[in-house]
Amino acid sequence: MSTHTVTAFDEDLKEIQQLVRDMVNLASTMIDEATKSLISTDSALAKRVVSEDLIMDDYQRRLDDRAIVLIGKRQPMAQDLRAVVGALRMAGDLERIGDLAKNIAKRVDAVGKSSMPRELARSIEDMTGLVLEQVHGVIEEYEARNPEGLVRLRDEDELIDVRYTAVFRELLTYMMEDARNITACTHLLFCAKNLERIGDHVTNIAENAYYVLTGAQLPVERPKQDETGMPAPVA
Amino acid sequence: MSTHTVTAFDEDLKEIQQLVRDMVNLASTMIDEATKSLISTDSALAKRVVSEDLIMDDYQRRLDDRAIVLIGKRQPMAQDLRAVVGALRMAGDLERIGDLAKNIAKRVDAVGKSSMPRELARSIEDMTGLVLEQVHGVIEEYEARNPEGLVRLRDEDELIDVRYTAVFRELLTYMMEDARNITACTHLLFCAKNLERIGDHVTNIAENAYYVLTGAQLPVERPKQDETGMPAPVA
Repeated sequence: MSTHTVTAFDEDLKEIQQLVRDMVNLASTMIDEATKSLISTDSALAKRVVSEDLIMDDYQRRLDDRAIVLIGKRQPMAQDLRAVVGALRMAGDLERIGDLAKNIAKRVDAVGKSSMPRELARSIEDMTGLVLEQVHGVIEEYEARNPEGLVRLRDEDELIDVRYTAVFRELLTYMMEDARNITACTHLLFCAKNLERIGDHVTNIAENAYYVLTGAQLPVERPKQDETGMPAPVA
Repeated sequence: MSTHTVTAFDEDLKEIQQLVRDMVNLASTMIDEATKSLISTDSALAKRVVSEDLIMDDYQRRLDDRAIVLIGKRQPMAQDLRAVVGALRMAGDLERIGDLAKNIAKRVDAVGKSSMPRELARSIEDMTGLVLEQVHGVIEEYEARNPEGLVRLRDEDELIDVRYTAVFRELLTYMMEDARNITACTHLLFCAKNLERIGDHVTNIAENAYYVLTGAQLPVERPKQDETGMPAPVA
């Protein structure tokens, strides 16, 4: 393979990786705004998140097209091929993260002004903070080519799961206290679940990034934990 | 490209497409069993679904490995490349469908014996029936190379969304009637949502299959509908 070809491939790959970076930045903005719109019942901000999801979908389409053209044109092998296929998969997870943030935003009106207790808002904000740390972390470890960081990050998803289980129980309590809370709390349950699922997608991204960097699967898959599926603490 | 190479590619692709077919069959079994275990509180059947998900993950890993080796070895172009990339993406959606079925099964014990009203069981069974029709339909239209069938199928996902919205409202009603229903109904809400999401993944598969067959994106994306995000019918 000539030096020219290698350089051309690298440049094409760089464009694709820039698109991954753009998608991560947008995902992070959408998650942050979705939670803010939910906590403050800000319909305008929620609408903005919904429209940002169109940009996310467009990023994914562009990345997909470029990746497929690149594979066909440059016929990369080994790590180069892994990098392109890895970018395709990461884009899939990032697009799903955008969908989940959008879904939170779309519930803002359904949750309504029904006076979210301060502790509950705090719990959801804390969960969002953890999720955002994971989203930023995964791309930083990948760009720094640090597989060990990706392993650590994958394991830290458990913190999100633990927080989700706590929010789930908090919401059940509010519903039982007063039937008028049920509709709003049901939508909040889905919002919390969406944040937990965003964490799962970050885990997928970490696993993919690890595979791109090392050519090996991440050791010992961490069992997914949604403790709310366990026998419930309340009847 | 020699006839030998074309044949070798076709054989490799056939193996990959057989894996897609195996994943569809397993997904269908898992969805069916998950709902049956939920309706009849059959913990043994639920455990079976959870273990089947390991087989699903293994199918996906095998498919991924073969697809990447195939791209590297045969360097397919145009429709051949689309078919391999399409299979990779379909496998991603089928793996997620397996996860969602497993998640339903894992909620069986949390829902418990708490006397599911017959109408509610019927609604969930009907929704599952629609989902299974879609799962079977998408692979049949793809194998029959019928893009028009895939368009129709994508549009039929709306039937599942409508059914989901009805189940969602039914569940809210039960929760408001009696606070003792809240925990079980909350888990059932997630189960119904998972069925609705399985429908969304079938839509993704239909879109991918259409792209493989035609080289074009499916015309006019159907807006995803989860009506429960709209202002709720009850306070």
